Amino acid sequence: MKETLEMADTVLRSWVTTANQPDCDFPIQNLPYGVFSTERGAGPGAGEAAEVGARRCGVAIGDQIVDLAACEARGLIDAGGTFAQPQLNDFIALGRAKWDEIRARLTALLAEDGDRTLPLVPMADATLHLPIRVTEFTDFYASKNHAFNVGVLFRGPENALPAQWTHMPIGYNGRASSVVVSGTPIRRPMGQVKGQDGPEWVACRRLDLELELGAIVGADSAMGERVGVDQAEQMIFGYVLLNDWSARDIQAWEYQPLGPFQSKALGTTISPWIVTQAALEPFRSEGAPRMNPLLPYLAEARPGFYDLSIGWTMNGQPMARTNYNVMYYSSAQQLAHHTSSGCPMRVGDLLGSGTISGPAPDQTGALLEMTQGGANPVQVNGQPRTFIQDGDEIGLYGFAQGDGYRIGFGPCIGRILPAQA
Amino acid sequence: MKETLEMADTVLRSWVTTANQPDCDFPIQNLPYGVFSTERGAGPGAGEAAEVGARRCGVAIGDQIVDLAACEARGLIDAGGTFAQPQLNDFIALGRAKWDEIRARLTALLAEDGDRTLPLVPMADATLHLPIRVTEFTDFYASKNHAFNVGVLFRGPENALPAQWTHMPIGYNGRASSVVVSGTPIRRPMGQVKGQDGPEWVACRRLDLELELGAIVGADSAMGERVGVDQAEQMIFGYVLLNDWSARDIQAWEYQPLGPFQSKALGTTISPWIVTQAALEPFRSEGAPRMNPLLPYLAEARPGFYDLSIGWTMNGQPMARTNYNVMYYSSAQQLAHHTSSGCPMRVGDLLGSGTISGPAPDQTGALLEMTQGGANPVQVNGQPRTFIQDGDEIGLYGFAQGDGYRIGFGPCIGRILPAQA
Repeated sequence: MKETLEMADTVLRSWVTTANQPDCDFPIQNLPYGVFSTERGAGPGAGEAAEVGARRCGVAIGDQIVDLAACEARGLIDAGGTFAQPQLNDFIALGRAKWDEIRARLTALLAEDGDRTLPLVPMADATLHLPIRVTEFTDFYASKNHAFNVGVLFRGPENALPAQWTHMPIGYNGRASSVVVSGTPIRRPMGQVKGQDGPEWVACRRLDLELELGAIVGADSAMGERVGVDQAEQMIFGYVLLNDWSARDIQAWEYQPLGPFQSKALGTTISPWIVTQAALEPFRSEGAPRMNPLLPYLAEARPGFYDLSIGWTMNGQPMARTNYNVMYYSSAQQLAHHTSSGCPMRVGDLLGSGTISGPAPDQTGALLEMTQGGANPVQVNGQPRTFIQDGDEIGLYGFAQGDGYRIGFGPCIGRILPAQA
Repeated sequence: MKETLEMADTVLRSWVTTANQPDCDFPIQNLPYGVFSTERGAGPGAGEAAEVGARRCGVAIGDQIVDLAACEARGLIDAGGTFAQPQLNDFIALGRAKWDEIRARLTALLAEDGDRTLPLVPMADATLHLPIRVTEFTDFYASKNHAFNVGVLFRGPENALPAQWTHMPIGYNGRASSVVVSGTPIRRPMGQVKGQDGPEWVACRRLDLELELGAIVGADSAMGERVGVDQAEQMIFGYVLLNDWSARDIQAWEYQPLGPFQSKALGTTISPWIVTQAALEPFRSEGAPRMNPLLPYLAEARPGFYDLSIGWTMNGQPMARTNYNVMYYSSAQQLAHHTSSGCPMRVGDLLGSGTISGPAPDQTGALLEMTQGGANPVQVNGQPRTFIQDGDEIGLYGFAQGDGYRIGFGPCIGRILPAQA
């Protein structure tokens, strides 16, 4: 039995045959974690959890979900009962050795010579939930293209890139309570904006997306403890796609001097499956070239990015595609900086990468950039479009392309509901 | 038996006689909630909790703590077992009707004709803990004097007060994980600051306090729901003193364009006793005069501030004293604005008022203002001082002065430890 992909001469395959299709997001090399529930009688294995309808932890494989709570109840794996929890936080808190053990065990159970009696639930019969209880949410600003493009629009070209941008990962604390799972409708916010004769109370007129990767912190750090970049990388459990919905008109009026607040609090959508760091390891990559040396506390011993195609669609139409390795700061560098003051980190903290944008318009992760602040509309299904309209559906996608398989994230979708005046 | 203070012809008194001294922070009119633990055999009542040393909820009265877990075990009060929890969140979540019921019941039990067998623990024998699990922490910026004074130092007098300041409560999301209880040492942070030839990695050279009031959110709101100012006021459980420690040199370098981050993440100290809104009700007050009308979603039907003396000391020396009613936005207005985008609020959210500063230097809630950015040192115990030095102890205090009693917060103290390079 092959323990890891790296040891395989040929591509490892699963007895769950849908996982072996080359364009499947969830091959045996991936094994992302999520939380799901099922209605009564929804496929084999569904009845094995303590309570029908209860949220429990699973791993995606092909078009199926491995019911980890049922696996543990059968004695196939041991995670101290944490897989029966309605979020992954308690499992994640068990630490890296346990993550590795479960990954190796599931790889063995799902390989072609594995255990074909494993309790599976068809993904089509399951409801996917927020995979973690988001402890705190921090959002960064780590694509130079995005920082420059947005800076030009907010402050003009001469002040576009802040002076400290090439020296530190700039970030701000976001709001954890409005992080929701893919598929949750997002309501267009009301808000205060700058009008001709003073502020006005309006439905947001410049609603935007932000294409991001979210890192899930998998270990605590103590107050007063600084975490180095290498140690920070060891603290990251995995990644999700993240859409940091943004109300640009509210943002422009509110954001000085203390940063974005209500313009980013309307909702943040994440994909339901956490792709582990282990699954992405073969795709490790350099990021954007350094413009100047970093202070030692931010220096990385090895490349901290991934060769990860990432893009977004509007109402099914592909809008932009770029790569995570355009970023200037890795999640590990962001996490290290986050602890530089001694700030304690906790399991379940979510770190947004910042909007991922390449240099060209069809590589941008936000409409603000793509349309130059609304000045240059883009065509969406034959209609000119600047910002997001009611009923629009934004989808994010991302995958790392291996040889004969790919590590995918699955969709991260949100549809906009009209404002409630 | 008198149910409320308002009905009393004379000042209500307690059989706990230390509570009847006019300068006691914790008279029977106050009854603030906290979380405490005791060593074995520490006074009457200490042994009644399920586990010696366990954290449990209490109410301060004079120099004693009413052991609420023991009260509930004896059947004297009914809060569904929540007082045996190590934080007040579950009790708070029971809602306003329960808050009122317990307050009335404790008032009766502690009145001169009350129950003298109530389980008390001497405060001197108890360790006080963080009273809530801080769900999320938001900090505002609601003193015009502070906003202007600090704005002058960061951006010059012409850009000092941001254009939107008189129209909305400006706030930012802070870091909940570094909120600690009074008495917890605070370590001077290391951080990145602007140097002559680029950024430098140094121990903070401009460490400061911020004198604030913290409001504890006592009810959830749903995602997409906007809360009006009157409803927001009903959602506030009570208040603590709050010191938002600030690394001014780190802040100046990092804060544009996304706001303060590591400069505010080194620690936030709150006082251990939550003074309820009910206790402060007799001290309701107007705030600062409005410079322009507010949009309807921020308009208050009645005064939303309190006549609350508040000040701070350094190494025991009084440094400044002002009043909470100098503020421009109330906690209820801040909470209403916080939900304006549909952002959900949760029990245990902590809202910092923003630094409370009057117009004069000896009314300022931060050294940055008091010393005009370090230009004009102040005398502390005969020594010139600009910012906080290692070993300095900062104490906040606050109280509302009634007729023959006062509603006090008790101390909110933090001592600075040297940086760890």
